[in-house]
Amino acid sequence: MTQTEDTIVALATPSGAGAIGVIRLSGPDAITIANSVFKGKDLTKQATHTLHYGSIIDGELILDEVVISLFVGPKSYTRENVIEISCHGSNYIIESIIKLLIKKGARAAKAGEFTLRAFLNGQLDLSQAEAVADLIASNSKASQQIALQQLRGGFSNQLAQLREQLVQFASLIELELDFAEEDVEFANRDQLKQLIHTITRIIGSLIQSFELGNAIKNGVNTVIAGRPNAGKSTLLNALLNEERAIVSHIAGTTRDTIEEVLNIQGINFRLIDTAGIREATDTIEQIGVQRTMEKISQSALLIYVFDAAQITIEELNNDLESLQTPGVTMLVVANKADLLSNEQLLNLPHTDKAIIISAKEKQHIDELKSKIYHAAIKEQLSGHETLVTNIRHLEALQKTEESLTRVLDGMDTVTSDFLSMDIKQALHYLGEITGAVTTDDLLENIFSKFCIGK
Amino acid sequence: MTQTEDTIVALATPSGAGAIGVIRLSGPDAITIANSVFKGKDLTKQATHTLHYGSIIDGELILDEVVISLFVGPKSYTRENVIEISCHGSNYIIESIIKLLIKKGARAAKAGEFTLRAFLNGQLDLSQAEAVADLIASNSKASQQIALQQLRGGFSNQLAQLREQLVQFASLIELELDFAEEDVEFANRDQLKQLIHTITRIIGSLIQSFELGNAIKNGVNTVIAGRPNAGKSTLLNALLNEERAIVSHIAGTTRDTIEEVLNIQGINFRLIDTAGIREATDTIEQIGVQRTMEKISQSALLIYVFDAAQITIEELNNDLESLQTPGVTMLVVANKADLLSNEQLLNLPHTDKAIIISAKEKQHIDELKSKIYHAAIKEQLSGHETLVTNIRHLEALQKTEESLTRVLDGMDTVTSDFLSMDIKQALHYLGEITGAVTTDDLLENIFSKFCIGK
Repeated sequence: MTQTEDTIVALATPSGAGAIGVIRLSGPDAITIANSVFKGKDLTKQATHTLHYGSIIDGELILDEVVISLFVGPKSYTRENVIEISCHGSNYIIESIIKLLIKKGARAAKAGEFTLRAFLNGQLDLSQAEAVADLIASNSKASQQIALQQLRGGFSNQLAQLREQLVQFASLIELELDFAEEDVEFANRDQLKQLIHTITRIIGSLIQSFELGNAIKNGVNTVIAGRPNAGKSTLLNALLNEERAIVSHIAGTTRDTIEEVLNIQGINFRLIDTAGIREATDTIEQIGVQRTMEKISQSALLIYVFDAAQITIEELNNDLESLQTPGVTMLVVANKADLLSNEQLLNLPHTDKAIIISAKEKQHIDELKSKIYHAAIKEQLSGHETLVTNIRHLEALQKTEESLTRVLDGMDTVTSDFLSMDIKQALHYLGEITGAVTTDDLLENIFSKFCIGK
Repeated sequence: MTQTEDTIVALATPSGAGAIGVIRLSGPDAITIANSVFKGKDLTKQATHTLHYGSIIDGELILDEVVISLFVGPKSYTRENVIEISCHGSNYIIESIIKLLIKKGARAAKAGEFTLRAFLNGQLDLSQAEAVADLIASNSKASQQIALQQLRGGFSNQLAQLREQLVQFASLIELELDFAEEDVEFANRDQLKQLIHTITRIIGSLIQSFELGNAIKNGVNTVIAGRPNAGKSTLLNALLNEERAIVSHIAGTTRDTIEEVLNIQGINFRLIDTAGIREATDTIEQIGVQRTMEKISQSALLIYVFDAAQITIEELNNDLESLQTPGVTMLVVANKADLLSNEQLLNLPHTDKAIIISAKEKQHIDELKSKIYHAAIKEQLSGHETLVTNIRHLEALQKTEESLTRVLDGMDTVTSDFLSMDIKQALHYLGEITGAVTTDDLLENIFSKFCIGK
């Protein structure tokens, strides 16, 4: 592979003020290039996984005192020789050292190029390589756990095995084509059917997992809606435990939608406060109501709040009916419970499904949070789920499913050559997930989104 | 020392997006704490200066896959056991790991605490420890070289040796005090005089070096001044090789002072463009002229520019006289040479000392840069100079010098007890530089300016 014939270099740590910076070199000449500017032990004669203190020198000039981490390939992240130079965290020093290494024969690494090499050299499959970027971007326990799961093999190991079995059937069917005139059947059709059923079952559940996986990775869009003065903004503040939205008693205060992130048990909920829904009389408010309905349709979760002390059963029924949106889970919240007597509370409409709280007095907010969490995460997360979070994987899985459905549909009717074609297509899409099948465009597209130095 | 009984932890790399982050632990329990959360080899049984791949785990939960650098004390930066955890560069992951390490018994490190420990454990003397912060802050070749020089011992080694000799004299004189009634002289006065002369000579040249050292570390304040329309802003642009100042032909355009940094051979010159100096008629301009004179007095270098095609000899003499400021080196620059004939150029006033250029046509700008450099840096910098850059060191040196002068002055007249007192004072100030003498306040003051993780 041409990519791995040269040695690449980049800063692996964020730039900015810090105690240390780490410069990473990878490639066949990583050790000799580092050795040519290192005053200390002879790095070419040291064991892998060792640390060496010394100076980086440019001729007579000392650039810095550093510690070098030595990884001899294939026992490294990229499976190539890797050197990490831990230097003082001055941008001037870091730049001087990188320039010197480039002068000595290294090349500035492109975004994601270290991980690309790890993939090309078989250290990681493609979905694992993608998990590295997800891991760096992870901002909650759940998103970190999914990325780690994926980095450690996740579903791609299983898919790779199933694909291997499918490859064998494909080759047997190819063989049948060579003997087409003799009407032989090398590939046992019942076994093939069984394998395809197994694969589609697994793929089906992976496709289903995307909704949750995506929610965990990108957060759950959650709209808070209700009539003016139902206490939506107060509820938002109570959930976030801070004064974020402008709260007032004048109905219609909140005209712009406000977004805040609420983390419940490691899941990020993107809370969207909205204008009150009612027959709006002025134009700005009308736009606000429209926007509320739009936001609801783009969300996974709707928290409908009503003023338990004010609303009539007709109004409530009206609202519940008009807000019902396909694919959006609705939580009904009866607010201002502090203004009601116990008897009034018992006679509330829809007490069976309403969650009774007081946003102002912060009563039952934790209970509400738990309900919000379980509305989004239906099963208990064990941390060992196999979840698809990547839209590229979802699309490949969907296309695999389509191809396999065609294989099953045609199994008893079409000729081996059509069967072979559909199986090959399924193999192609399955292979795209793990990287068994790649194109330059696909790789470019994936790794250009990485940061430099990774 | 109580400070080193516990184990400290901090992020050593800048926070922000990056491929990796490095978390540093130092203290007696660094290895056992790291081992308690590490799934991989048993870190307590590994050799120093080795690298280990594995996972950071919180009970059942995997937090990240990491590489651990193991340094067994005293072979480490702090001379304590040191662990560096190189993890994925997600702030969420970094925080999780640090929290976990704190839960397991580490304490969040204070600013500069790793380097403080290196000092307290004798790895670095105080001026070397200060050089670490200078090195991280260095932004030019010269400032980096001085910091490195200081980190590698610099003048503090030499001072420590001389101080040692002075300590011996001090103890001999103390001894004389014990035998005061017998009029003995254990300390040879001639040798003492010689030693003090040696020390004051060295200290004197160190004190002198501060001006240059400080210039290199903090840059050389350089004012560009001249009559309106002499081409000051055009000159600034030519020096910086970019369009920075607003250039116009209307006299008096530049009212605010503009600061830019020009790097010549590794030295930063802080260029300050100013309003034209003349009898200003409107108030704003008058303030500008005042500010120019103030700026000149605060600078090390003044570049006076005049319009060679316009100025009269009287005006020129006037300007040169009024701008002459004690302690400020003046460079005289004849601008707009492109508008003059060769004969006119030869007849220019003060051709002997004026540097003739055309800022607009960028003629002789490199020659001017060289003159600017040599006006600030009188001798050729070899990169091996012993330069004082730290105001704390300067003050201690000045106080040492005063004490030693008192010792010399009193040598033949005062009694041993006064002599002893003055020598002790000199020893105290000399010791403050290397850290042989410290107070909590002094250490607090020095290390609180460090970044956390260093």
